[in-house]
Amino acid sequence: MSTGFFPVERVAFEGPDSTNPLAFRHYNPDEMVMGKRLEDQLRFAVAYWHSFAYEGLDPFGGATFQRPWFPNDSMDNARLKADVAFEMFTALGVPFYCFHDADIRPDLGSFTASKKAYEEIIDIFAAKQDETGVCLLWGTANLFSHRRWMAGASTNPDPEVFAYAGATIKTCLDATHRLGGQNYVLWGGREGYETLLNTDLAREDQQMGRMLNMVVEYKHKIGFTGQIMVEPKPQEPSKHQYDFDVATVYGFLKRHGLEDEVTLNIEQGHAILAGHSFEHEIALAQALGVFGSIDMNRNDYQSGWDTDQFPNNVPEVALAYYHILKGGGFGQGGTNFDARIRRQSLDAEDLLIAHIGAMDTCARGLKSAAAMLEDGTLPGYVDERYSGWNSDYYQSVLAGKVSLDEIAAKVENEGIEPEPRSGKQEYLENLVNRFV
Amino acid sequence: MSTGFFPVERVAFEGPDSTNPLAFRHYNPDEMVMGKRLEDQLRFAVAYWHSFAYEGLDPFGGATFQRPWFPNDSMDNARLKADVAFEMFTALGVPFYCFHDADIRPDLGSFTASKKAYEEIIDIFAAKQDETGVCLLWGTANLFSHRRWMAGASTNPDPEVFAYAGATIKTCLDATHRLGGQNYVLWGGREGYETLLNTDLAREDQQMGRMLNMVVEYKHKIGFTGQIMVEPKPQEPSKHQYDFDVATVYGFLKRHGLEDEVTLNIEQGHAILAGHSFEHEIALAQALGVFGSIDMNRNDYQSGWDTDQFPNNVPEVALAYYHILKGGGFGQGGTNFDARIRRQSLDAEDLLIAHIGAMDTCARGLKSAAAMLEDGTLPGYVDERYSGWNSDYYQSVLAGKVSLDEIAAKVENEGIEPEPRSGKQEYLENLVNRFV
Amino acid sequence: MSTGFFPVERVAFEGPDSTNPLAFRHYNPDEMVMGKRLEDQLRFAVAYWHSFAYEGLDPFGGATFQRPWFPNDSMDNARLKADVAFEMFTALGVPFYCFHDADIRPDLGSFTASKKAYEEIIDIFAAKQDETGVCLLWGTANLFSHRRWMAGASTNPDPEVFAYAGATIKTCLDATHRLGGQNYVLWGGREGYETLLNTDLAREDQQMGRMLNMVVEYKHKIGFTGQIMVEPKPQEPSKHQYDFDVATVYGFLKRHGLEDEVTLNIEQGHAILAGHSFEHEIALAQALGVFGSIDMNRNDYQSGWDTDQFPNNVPEVALAYYHILKGGGFGQGGTNFDARIRRQSLDAEDLLIAHIGAMDTCARGLKSAAAMLEDGTLPGYVDERYSGWNSDYYQSVLAGKVSLDEIAAKVENEGIEPEPRSGKQEYLENLVNRFV
Amino acid sequence: MSTGFFPVERVAFEGPDSTNPLAFRHYNPDEMVMGKRLEDQLRFAVAYWHSFAYEGLDPFGGATFQRPWFPNDSMDNARLKADVAFEMFTALGVPFYCFHDADIRPDLGSFTASKKAYEEIIDIFAAKQDETGVCLLWGTANLFSHRRWMAGASTNPDPEVFAYAGATIKTCLDATHRLGGQNYVLWGGREGYETLLNTDLAREDQQMGRMLNMVVEYKHKIGFTGQIMVEPKPQEPSKHQYDFDVATVYGFLKRHGLEDEVTLNIEQGHAILAGHSFEHEIALAQALGVFGSIDMNRNDYQSGWDTDQFPNNVPEVALAYYHILKGGGFGQGGTNFDARIRRQSLDAEDLLIAHIGAMDTCARGLKSAAAMLEDGTLPGYVDERYSGWNSDYYQSVLAGKVSLDEIAAKVENEGIEPEPRSGKQEYLENLVNRFV
Repeated sequence: MSTGFFPVERVAFEGPDSTNPLAFRHYNPDEMVMGKRLEDQLRFAVAYWHSFAYEGLDPFGGATFQRPWFPNDSMDNARLKADVAFEMFTALGVPFYCFHDADIRPDLGSFTASKKAYEEIIDIFAAKQDETGVCLLWGTANLFSHRRWMAGASTNPDPEVFAYAGATIKTCLDATHRLGGQNYVLWGGREGYETLLNTDLAREDQQMGRMLNMVVEYKHKIGFTGQIMVEPKPQEPSKHQYDFDVATVYGFLKRHGLEDEVTLNIEQGHAILAGHSFEHEIALAQALGVFGSIDMNRNDYQSGWDTDQFPNNVPEVALAYYHILKGGGFGQGGTNFDARIRRQSLDAEDLLIAHIGAMDTCARGLKSAAAMLEDGTLPGYVDERYSGWNSDYYQSVLAGKVSLDEIAAKVENEGIEPEPRSGKQEYLENLVNRFV
Repeated sequence: MSTGFFPVERVAFEGPDSTNPLAFRHYNPDEMVMGKRLEDQLRFAVAYWHSFAYEGLDPFGGATFQRPWFPNDSMDNARLKADVAFEMFTALGVPFYCFHDADIRPDLGSFTASKKAYEEIIDIFAAKQDETGVCLLWGTANLFSHRRWMAGASTNPDPEVFAYAGATIKTCLDATHRLGGQNYVLWGGREGYETLLNTDLAREDQQMGRMLNMVVEYKHKIGFTGQIMVEPKPQEPSKHQYDFDVATVYGFLKRHGLEDEVTLNIEQGHAILAGHSFEHEIALAQALGVFGSIDMNRNDYQSGWDTDQFPNNVPEVALAYYHILKGGGFGQGGTNFDARIRRQSLDAEDLLIAHIGAMDTCARGLKSAAAMLEDGTLPGYVDERYSGWNSDYYQSVLAGKVSLDEIAAKVENEGIEPEPRSGKQEYLENLVNRFV
Repeated sequence: MSTGFFPVERVAFEGPDSTNPLAFRHYNPDEMVMGKRLEDQLRFAVAYWHSFAYEGLDPFGGATFQRPWFPNDSMDNARLKADVAFEMFTALGVPFYCFHDADIRPDLGSFTASKKAYEEIIDIFAAKQDETGVCLLWGTANLFSHRRWMAGASTNPDPEVFAYAGATIKTCLDATHRLGGQNYVLWGGREGYETLLNTDLAREDQQMGRMLNMVVEYKHKIGFTGQIMVEPKPQEPSKHQYDFDVATVYGFLKRHGLEDEVTLNIEQGHAILAGHSFEHEIALAQALGVFGSIDMNRNDYQSGWDTDQFPNNVPEVALAYYHILKGGGFGQGGTNFDARIRRQSLDAEDLLIAHIGAMDTCARGLKSAAAMLEDGTLPGYVDERYSGWNSDYYQSVLAGKVSLDEIAAKVENEGIEPEPRSGKQEYLENLVNRFV
Repeated sequence: MSTGFFPVERVAFEGPDSTNPLAFRHYNPDEMVMGKRLEDQLRFAVAYWHSFAYEGLDPFGGATFQRPWFPNDSMDNARLKADVAFEMFTALGVPFYCFHDADIRPDLGSFTASKKAYEEIIDIFAAKQDETGVCLLWGTANLFSHRRWMAGASTNPDPEVFAYAGATIKTCLDATHRLGGQNYVLWGGREGYETLLNTDLAREDQQMGRMLNMVVEYKHKIGFTGQIMVEPKPQEPSKHQYDFDVATVYGFLKRHGLEDEVTLNIEQGHAILAGHSFEHEIALAQALGVFGSIDMNRNDYQSGWDTDQFPNNVPEVALAYYHILKGGGFGQGGTNFDARIRRQSLDAEDLLIAHIGAMDTCARGLKSAAAMLEDGTLPGYVDERYSGWNSDYYQSVLAGKVSLDEIAAKVENEGIEPEPRSGKQEYLENLVNRFV
């Protein structure tokens, strides 16, 4: 029995010529791309928080959405929200969803009461998963909205907040495990500082490192086989966040002995806020061996805050998927839409339309990326460019068998004066445009 | 016998009421601050490149300066440049200077010929150091200006460029050693990429790691006791540079086993381009154990490029020195003015005036920082804020003796509901303003 | 009878050596600066919204402040809020305050009911003004928080929203007039767009121009003698806001015939978000004849959103006041602190401390600016730099009496080849540092 | 007789399936789009400076290109450069080109000698135009590279620089007129300041206004019928440039009575540096009646400087052409590629490849834009959104026949409480994606 919230029960694939705003034009889940169904390549997930918990607030404005399940203060509303959410997952045909504890249950004032409410909703989710076949891509804990976290969760100067954060993560990881979640994510929106004047960086690093080790130890203890992932973001809400970007988190993992235990959930918008392209962050995580999953969205390049818009630029998305496919595709990761409709998009159908456009954009992007790889010209060009390094001598240089004075002597003795070669950037950009 | 380039031979300290633009108002090298002469605390160095090699170009304009030692195409001009440079070091009374190979000698077309010219100038520098008592803070190689470096030095796809870079570094490190330089710096302005489309991140990382290991091995071989330092900068000239910021370089060092061998030379302007405050980068390097030295300058917060202006904001500079002094001050590092006069500042005296203003700004900043430390309220506040962590229980948490489920049980059993405390940011900002 | 909310009833001036965090160190209202009392030069105002209505939300977190007058849903709470507010104005000794309608009264669901509540509070304010001597610097209407404004107030595609905005402004302007307010401000946080795809720029410009003309006509009708001011800001909350910066608003006023009727309220943080320095916006408004007043605060240069922090950098503030004093000082305008304590600053005293630090910073800045003007070197330098233009010939050029071909002929005939002069930027920066 | 510089003499249209990097895949000049040949819709121009004068310098590196016509110090080289340039125009089949005086002739040390050299090259251009049919889109004067302009051209504190600028503009406008140029452009790269400390904004505004009036008067005197265009850019090379963006230049024109005489040449990269989208600047110029022409390129969103890359993102370009076509298309304006190959793109063919990719990108973009207009859904949606304003009452409001108190009374009397409607942003974004 449907809640009747959405105007359609199922969004169909109608092909590129369709003008139906409630149909897919490019996302056909059963289309085969590089040996897999498109659904299995893209592994889409809907984010519970943006679509069902966000009320339309911005820093200068109050709620604009008026949903029948607002406000988030009763179990009845939480249950109605869950009903609508699974109706949307089904309507879109997405295989996955993601959520925080605070998205799905009311805050009942104490740890124990809120946990009980949470577990009641988890039971409902478990039943709905069975019923619909929709699975959990990842679970996570909201350690940033409540005032107790204002000065940090694991990095709080008050150790009781650290303890509270630990208890919260344990609860959420248990629930994720129970729901068969494929991954568990930590985003440290308050792990950072507002002012360095009141902050001890070394202490907070030690605290954060210990917490992540505790989580990894507990994962093994309970036999959770999903990835533990950290999600980088440079700032907002905090002035500076410790998980600044992929390179920074890599250094943190290495420092705390976690580089083989933890991978990264990389978001387009967060990459941009850190001054990087999305494909940079993906390719770097792959090069460092810590690529986990992606949060797909888009950020306004001209706004200095997190706009979490739905992706709509196919050429950009194609480059991100190019690196993902080149690295072997998603394993346990996937494409989570960490994106929200604009606060002026009031209609129920806007939720569907936004996801449809994003799924079509991703489908076009991934198919373009696959075509680039199958064509082979682009990856082949890169390999050829470095081919001089394949000689025995330069392999021995990389292997550490040649010293600085030896290589210097070679330059002088052989009169080496290297001649630069064109980097062919415009040629490569045009090449990409053949596929997008 | 003076070249007569500058209007004065010696800039004197005249005290805060002086209106003489060619006198110091705050920098009295012999003033004692925290147990050391101010000169020994600040360890000022002049950057050869900005003051003597920069011709006034910008991306839309040609040379504006007309120096008697331009163009940089003959040994006669190189010698005249050296004469004027040491006259300025002496006039300002700075204890140190810094230079690249390309700043001090003409490019004579081949590695061997340019090296010979370089070594001839090094002989002159050695004699001038003896004569004036001015010392070398650090030497470095310019691996970014010549077209051979356009696609990288150690990270070039052409291994012969890697070899050439190695040979150049060896030459410069030898010269630095010979001049008694206190440090050697590597800034990788072309170690990065213009487009990811033609770039293999993993290969370039391996190349760069190997080069830095070669440099460290060679340092030990020749008995150079200075620090080897890497200088972070996120971009410009490249679209993305690998040595993005302190956290990124730390991860790189750790990955290549170099975290105990290499420290960082941190620049104000580069910190800002990476989205960080200068004090953040300093404090982070200290927390990670890789703080080396600073390049003092200022960047226009509203220009997205490297403006390399002389510092003039005392409150900003004070916070940087606060962290340096709190961490024990400079060891072998110092305050290098990686700053240039504006291209409209045509007069010889402008070179002196810019350094005088910067040295006075730094002197005021460091004295303010010392006062904050001696007062003790600010550091004491921070210690107190974290004091809850000093209990036996929470020390055992940090020591890894408590598991996630144990700490979760404690929260539930004890009904822990932490109450937030004010972060007192405005109080601390006002406190700082008592000293600047 | 005090509410007892604040720990002190009156903040005293104790001089620069005071270590009392609840005393002024630099702001002595009776000190004479350039012929006026410091209080009359600075004309400080407290912003009602930040100090009494803001609950500590940020885009990722809920309320952190727990004030006895929250939530804003009853007249009792509104009255308590007013009591505390006037206690703070009195404690700080500020001569002025500023408010929006939505700050001071609950939203009672309809225009008429909310207006009635508003007018009841206005009566209370009138009485409190009489009692305390505190005056209204400016009133304004909140046309951005409620969902009805989400697509614009005067620029809304729905003309009934335009009408509603007009009715709201009339109510607020009437109240401002009644309270003897010195100015009335319009900030168009929703006058702009989220996406150009659904926007007609020409229509919205016409709507906005008509509204401002209606306001000016009504001001004259009721005999309000304060300035009507527009406050520029480039973006946030909207993706693009029409009142982008001073130059943009000037063009808008000129287009709608309002350049002699309307002036500008210029905010430090908004200037920075638009890519300008605060002093640029002030000096430009003066050059264009539209300078009105200032919103003093500070923005994190490294956050792309409006941080509305209290000012604490004296050198920056000094340059702003330099231009204000050089232009003759404030007329009916003043220094409104459009700044809020950080959401972690939970204590009642933090509200006082933040304002004390800001007032001291402004006092130091203004006194430094006065010293620069009284010294005369800086303004004298600028006049001298342009003195070549004072010749008869070049005055006739400016007066339009010389044509392009005539001046070209002069260049060729006289063989004019201008020689550049040093711009002396570093000299001038050092000069400023003598006074701050 | 060809110089043999390029590998092909003519780039052909081969259709979308071509893999020939030296062929067009989308730009078929004879294809009819909205009633015109594609060539006549797009009106492509090549920029002489980037393709033939730029040597590959960047702020940290010297020349990388080694062209047979370098250095720019002799008439022989200038003639060779002209030969190659017209070979490229012909090979690409572009109808137009653009140039500065300094691009095409050597600087011979005095105004008179350089002018003579310039006129000699203009004779050559005139002959080549006749021979090839290639026309001049616009001419312009370089008033930013030489050191004489370092402190401004028309805004220089030295009036002789103003005179020199006038003489230079006259020479260039005469040449543009002689070559049948369709427009004349002024870009004021040095009309601004490095520091407000040495700047008098009001004086410089007066100077700049007078110069532009002189140019307009002279245009009429000689009967030049092209547009006089100003090109906005916010900064770089200067810290602040007066022609910041479209809105700012509009205000300047209005202030100096030039809004009906001067239009704007709008650049993608400059729009981005000013914090705007390209389509915003175009649509705004159209709404203000000052749209002239475009400089097509692309700027790295993550670099704070002018990167002048060739466009390659079809969805972005499509939105720009959507507004151009919606406004009636180009009149005398056109699409000038103010873009340069990367400094690593050393090969002659890279010049062709870059233009080919850009022309294909623009062709796809314009055809997509035409399809959106012909479909009609998007423009129809916008009209419908504002349709409430078409009532008699609200037309009378816009016409100034309703006062603020009248509209306020209407709200109260009629109990108006407007209900917001969805802004449908995601729907519209998806709609656009049907066409790109």
